Amino acid sequence: MPKLDWDKLYWEDLAPGPLAPCGPYLVTADEIRTFAAEFDPQEMHVGDGIAETQLVEGLFASGWHTIAVMMRLISDGLLCRTAFMGGAGCDEVKWLAPVRPGDALTVHPKVLETRESRTRAEAGFVKFLFEVMNGRGVTVMTVVGHLMFGRREPREPAA
Amino acid sequence: MPKLDWDKLYWEDLAPGPLAPCGPYLVTADEIRTFAAEFDPQEMHVGDGIAETQLVEGLFASGWHTIAVMMRLISDGLLCRTAFMGGAGCDEVKWLAPVRPGDALTVHPKVLETRESRTRAEAGFVKFLFEVMNGRGVTVMTVVGHLMFGRREPREPAA
Repeated sequence: MPKLDWDKLYWEDLAPGPLAPCGPYLVTADEIRTFAAEFDPQEMHVGDGIAETQLVEGLFASGWHTIAVMMRLISDGLLCRTAFMGGAGCDEVKWLAPVRPGDALTVHPKVLETRESRTRAEAGFVKFLFEVMNGRGVTVMTVVGHLMFGRREPREPAA
Repeated sequence: MPKLDWDKLYWEDLAPGPLAPCGPYLVTADEIRTFAAEFDPQEMHVGDGIAETQLVEGLFASGWHTIAVMMRLISDGLLCRTAFMGGAGCDEVKWLAPVRPGDALTVHPKVLETRESRTRAEAGFVKFLFEVMNGRGVTVMTVVGHLMFGRREPREPAA
């Protein structure tokens, strides 16, 4: 068991409710095209945004780029202050509006619920809703994810 | 309505069942650290993998890196042969085992179900299960996602 760091938030400290927003992060056209060229080379994310089959006109970011930026924002703005141990998965990812060059993204994290880990006495799970908004207050993505955090005190063994 | 390309798979062509695997893609330690330094700078993804708080020993890839690689594999191995229009979201993302330097990842796509779009006569949705495996046949991640594809023939207007 590593030594406790009293400046950090542990599993016990994360109660249901909203947490401080993280960001902003300014998205550029160059970054959109660089990420997409490597991982999601669709015309709408690398081209000039005028392909006739596009659902949405203009260049916009890959949804996986948006989620990677979200991870960076919560890493710097939230997780670095906690005993974060890793992510287990997501229940839901929704892309609701296109992310454009010049958008300043912020993440609004909310703890939905917490539960003990059945297998690890020193850890617990926290279910979060992450709402990603652009500078105009439009929600561009929501993610419901399960994250694991260290506990301040290990769970009591079952009687 | 753009002209049909008879070499492509349209919404009508995607029936429930497995499709050909995509890949492999060789993951390197350099790539793992480069992605994580930009988007997910946790010690387990950028460091030497010996931090005492780590759940899993050793360097391993960010889950968002794994999902970005999955997107690249299905872009090159599946979507480029289809009338793909974009992704709407995911129902589920599960990280099941760590992705290590030297892993050769493959994606095994399976169509779970298809449905018409209520709002777009020229498009339809396909619900996929994507199973990502390493070279030893271990499933490292599963994703259930909703993708939109162009239709060969637009939906009949409601009577």
